Amino acid sequence: MAGSTHASEDAARLTPEQRAEIDAQRAECVPTRRATVTAVEEILYEPLPILDHGFIRVIDYMGDDAAVVQAARVSYGRGTKRQRDDQGLINYLMRNWHTSPFEMCEIKLHVKLPIFVARQWIRHRTANVNEYSARYSILDNEFYIPDAAHIAAQSSTNRQGRGDTLDAEQARRVQAILRDDAERAYGHYDELLNEGPDGQPRDPSYDGIARELARMNLSLNFYTQWYWKTDLHNFMHFVRLRADAHAQYEIRVYADTLSDVMARWVPMTHKAFVNYRQGGAQLSQQSLDAVRRMLAGETLTAKAAGMSPGEWRELQALLAGGAQQIGAGAPEAAEDA
Amino acid sequence: MAGSTHASEDAARLTPEQRAEIDAQRAECVPTRRATVTAVEEILYEPLPILDHGFIRVIDYMGDDAAVVQAARVSYGRGTKRQRDDQGLINYLMRNWHTSPFEMCEIKLHVKLPIFVARQWIRHRTANVNEYSARYSILDNEFYIPDAAHIAAQSSTNRQGRGDTLDAEQARRVQAILRDDAERAYGHYDELLNEGPDGQPRDPSYDGIARELARMNLSLNFYTQWYWKTDLHNFMHFVRLRADAHAQYEIRVYADTLSDVMARWVPMTHKAFVNYRQGGAQLSQQSLDAVRRMLAGETLTAKAAGMSPGEWRELQALLAGGAQQIGAGAPEAAEDA
Amino acid sequence: MAGSTHASEDAARLTPEQRAEIDAQRAECVPTRRATVTAVEEILYEPLPILDHGFIRVIDYMGDDAAVVQAARVSYGRGTKRQRDDQGLINYLMRNWHTSPFEMCEIKLHVKLPIFVARQWIRHRTANVNEYSARYSILDNEFYIPDAAHIAAQSSTNRQGRGDTLDAEQARRVQAILRDDAERAYGHYDELLNEGPDGQPRDPSYDGIARELARMNLSLNFYTQWYWKTDLHNFMHFVRLRADAHAQYEIRVYADTLSDVMARWVPMTHKAFVNYRQGGAQLSQQSLDAVRRMLAGETLTAKAAGMSPGEWRELQALLAGGAQQIGAGAPEAAEDA
Amino acid sequence: MAGSTHASEDAARLTPEQRAEIDAQRAECVPTRRATVTAVEEILYEPLPILDHGFIRVIDYMGDDAAVVQAARVSYGRGTKRQRDDQGLINYLMRNWHTSPFEMCEIKLHVKLPIFVARQWIRHRTANVNEYSARYSILDNEFYIPDAAHIAAQSSTNRQGRGDTLDAEQARRVQAILRDDAERAYGHYDELLNEGPDGQPRDPSYDGIARELARMNLSLNFYTQWYWKTDLHNFMHFVRLRADAHAQYEIRVYADTLSDVMARWVPMTHKAFVNYRQGGAQLSQQSLDAVRRMLAGETLTAKAAGMSPGEWRELQALLAGGAQQIGAGAPEAAEDA
Repeated sequence: MAGSTHASEDAARLTPEQRAEIDAQRAECVPTRRATVTAVEEILYEPLPILDHGFIRVIDYMGDDAAVVQAARVSYGRGTKRQRDDQGLINYLMRNWHTSPFEMCEIKLHVKLPIFVARQWIRHRTANVNEYSARYSILDNEFYIPDAAHIAAQSSTNRQGRGDTLDAEQARRVQAILRDDAERAYGHYDELLNEGPDGQPRDPSYDGIARELARMNLSLNFYTQWYWKTDLHNFMHFVRLRADAHAQYEIRVYADTLSDVMARWVPMTHKAFVNYRQGGAQLSQQSLDAVRRMLAGETLTAKAAGMSPGEWRELQALLAGGAQQIGAGAPEAAEDA
Repeated sequence: MAGSTHASEDAARLTPEQRAEIDAQRAECVPTRRATVTAVEEILYEPLPILDHGFIRVIDYMGDDAAVVQAARVSYGRGTKRQRDDQGLINYLMRNWHTSPFEMCEIKLHVKLPIFVARQWIRHRTANVNEYSARYSILDNEFYIPDAAHIAAQSSTNRQGRGDTLDAEQARRVQAILRDDAERAYGHYDELLNEGPDGQPRDPSYDGIARELARMNLSLNFYTQWYWKTDLHNFMHFVRLRADAHAQYEIRVYADTLSDVMARWVPMTHKAFVNYRQGGAQLSQQSLDAVRRMLAGETLTAKAAGMSPGEWRELQALLAGGAQQIGAGAPEAAEDA
Repeated sequence: MAGSTHASEDAARLTPEQRAEIDAQRAECVPTRRATVTAVEEILYEPLPILDHGFIRVIDYMGDDAAVVQAARVSYGRGTKRQRDDQGLINYLMRNWHTSPFEMCEIKLHVKLPIFVARQWIRHRTANVNEYSARYSILDNEFYIPDAAHIAAQSSTNRQGRGDTLDAEQARRVQAILRDDAERAYGHYDELLNEGPDGQPRDPSYDGIARELARMNLSLNFYTQWYWKTDLHNFMHFVRLRADAHAQYEIRVYADTLSDVMARWVPMTHKAFVNYRQGGAQLSQQSLDAVRRMLAGETLTAKAAGMSPGEWRELQALLAGGAQQIGAGAPEAAEDA
Repeated sequence: MAGSTHASEDAARLTPEQRAEIDAQRAECVPTRRATVTAVEEILYEPLPILDHGFIRVIDYMGDDAAVVQAARVSYGRGTKRQRDDQGLINYLMRNWHTSPFEMCEIKLHVKLPIFVARQWIRHRTANVNEYSARYSILDNEFYIPDAAHIAAQSSTNRQGRGDTLDAEQARRVQAILRDDAERAYGHYDELLNEGPDGQPRDPSYDGIARELARMNLSLNFYTQWYWKTDLHNFMHFVRLRADAHAQYEIRVYADTLSDVMARWVPMTHKAFVNYRQGGAQLSQQSLDAVRRMLAGETLTAKAAGMSPGEWRELQALLAGGAQQIGAGAPEAAEDA
């Protein structure tokens, strides 16, 4: 996940100064009495590359699987060390939606992401955020251009989302348009600022404008960055919604990396999460009744089940095992801007 | 629900002054351009009786089913008036966990409830609360004594909750202990306060103590009251958790009344809520796989399904239709104090 | 505030269909027992124009000044009708930061605003938001171009924010750059979508791309819109931070309109808000000590007061009456993106 | 703060098993790359005694002063090591209410506290809580009896809170009443449960009742315990409100200990907090105008200043240095239950 990749991968993402700062921080190691997770320590501070210029860096974490158990028991010590018991209790908590023990773990990340992804991400309100300020600082000339493999037409079946991928030629055309506009936008941003290295106008023949004004010329694929901190319960909620097949690809890749981080951090909780949340399904009363009747040998139709054609199709797909999730919280139209 | 009952029912709950204040407020009626729901207006301000001294009063509400639709569409007007379209969209939102349109409705209640119920209730953090102050005011001599029908032994199968009901004789004994202790506690509370009607010591031979101190002698079955305000999404979350069979009876009766209020207020949303939340079920990946194999004709055991005996029993009960809910968020040990 | 202006003002903001929808909703008037505020009813649903294409529309509200008082008293009726008593209690609550009674009022708005303003706005987490979806729908060709009067250089004294206004010629140049880039961006957005009125490709010679992709080419001055709902306490917090002199002009004009709405909705609370929050100041221990010593006749310097030069200047400005606020929560670098 | 005291102090608070569990956890020490604070490590897991049976134990923490700075800069490394720069930035953030960098630190506590204190504490909603369950477990026979020094009459000047302390004789009488009632309540609780060590009825001649029912007989001075986790911003908000002179003594002692913990954990932030929050004051517009006029040499009265007698008195006391705080968020009637 980290380590050997960084020589090649980082070139596009980190300046030498940034690389040095990270290495310096990774080199510091001190003793602690706190719950500590070796598999997270290994990747601490390292950028995990996402998209063309983005990353997630784990900056800090609090707690581990045992801390979930400890909180659930309001205990004085670390309690049982038998993994089997801990996994059993964690399964029980997850199955019965006892969320407060999971809130007792916390994680802090440094994330670099396109602004249109940031706009979806920020809708998760139960988190702490500190974003790089474009009122105070100048944004870098970094913008997202999708790979050809992810440039697709509007889906015809889904009311939002993507359908078929464009052919290579057409994809190149799309990339060219996006790149040209982004480069022109940044060029004008820079021109509007007119800031030289000494803070004086670079071109003294005209006045620059304030940073808070000039930024409005940048497009939504420019990268921003923030520190983001949340608890394990809300972290899982984010992953469940954003690693879902209905989520936009560009946020899904972030959620997938978060899921990998979670598997390192709290492996027992991750296992329960996959079984009870990600791989599971929420059935409506009508769906449940239909399943009962089918198990009793009845052959049903949408009409006989009292379900709409769309819901019936979803149920069939779910029972056929084709779809992993049904109504599992996929964030669609109403949730995303 | 309201209306004719109040003559007899209110006697135990309202002073004549309170009854008059409520009647005065109900008598005022003015025109508004806002979304208005006749079925809620009918019960506005009326105490809906719960337990022996408790109630819920609807003080105000914002929005209706159409307001959910309007918010989902970010529309300029009320939009379609065809009920069928609105119900379809509401079903879609509920099924896909698009929660933000439901957050656009709000309700405000005046609730009178035993302190031990209030302690569970307050765990729902996404709400506004204004509680009657026992630092500033003197609490009334009102405490909860359970009906014989609800006095039961600890459950032997469930790790918390109640099992068999006690016989009448034993129940009376329990009630007598609770009543004696509550009366003594209040008597001492009153004695410790030593406040006469004029604010002067009733018995000048000794000093009273501060209200914030004296209240600590009251037991958890004394009634408190508060104004409580929340949005429809969090309202549904409360009802789903607290109207559940695993919730403590004394909070369940409040949740049941909230569900009745919701059916008046937003009938389409209520219908979708019953189908997709209350009557539905969350299946784990293992449960889902088991259902698929059973539908394919396989005869399974817990072991073959890779499930624990407890989970397997729950799944069997669910598919037999005996249990309405499985892992649907029942608040148990870890969540409640 | 509303009414007569709309013929001319609306032309730029509303389509005839939108105007008709609003008029239809304004025409409906029904009786209610709820707390109702005439001055808000007058402007209900009307767009209050802001910037070149933006607006705020009040969609719904819950409660009034008396509802604050009622909640503070956890009362059964509307309680006292003596305005003087209500104002006194509201002042007391505001002065002593008793926030929960103010949380008992709620307001719902429809807001149209530039995306860079929306990004600041959304940082206020304690609110409900439903934004227009650019994954599901196509954004309109509407973008913000600042008036010449608001095009200014970076401030040299303030670490962010604006300084001197540019001269007319230079301002026109800035506007031209912003307008050209926005028009080109929208043209390409439209071309990338390639959607005809029937949903089929307008130009059949190439494939369009998904809406969720194409939007990334739009710049941050394009308008978005949302439904936004919050309680009076958080509403005041928003106004205090965003109507502040340090806030960016483009969000300040929204906050100013919110303040006007508040004066209509809860005039007593507004009055207390101006005295105890907006017009007041937070003094540090050092500032307070300095004031005490100056009142005792001492002539102080920054050094003698133990304050930094910056803080000392701020205090001097405050006491001279030049600055209305000092450290009153102005959101600067660290808070805004 | 910890260490040597525990032999004597712990006797009343910890069982030998609890002491051993804590010692075992303290003995574990492993290397970490995370931000680590020696002064907190020293007291980690140790009970800091409060009241007669309560305590606060620091279970975990995330971040330090440098982490606040790092988040404010959205930086790649730990950044500057010059203490002076860090203190300056922290002062700036605190003065200008830039709260998000402080939210990037987190702390987790194990707290044992009387139920009536827990009821005030829980009103701080922006925190994670996991309380010991009295539905699932049996509460211990531990209740709070105030020291004679803290048994006082209702305040005559303050609308809530305490006035003069009772004399020793009368205080003993109050203690005796509280102790007798608590002991009787627990005796009946135990009798109602009727649980033997093997889970069978201790007295087979009658049925016990469920734990969730029996607990209602306990009074509000019984101790409960929970895990409580919050970020540094909300931690400071708690301390500011609850360490205030207007807060009830029994919660103030907890807040005072939290303040001590904070001084160990983030000393620079603590210093800024004392200067800009705890030791400072919020002046209203009227107060500020009055101060300006007095500095200009005018001799004012309440009437001339346009202030109420109460506010005028508060201002005079503040300027005389007698009162540390004015309207600084003291939680009074409306906030506390």
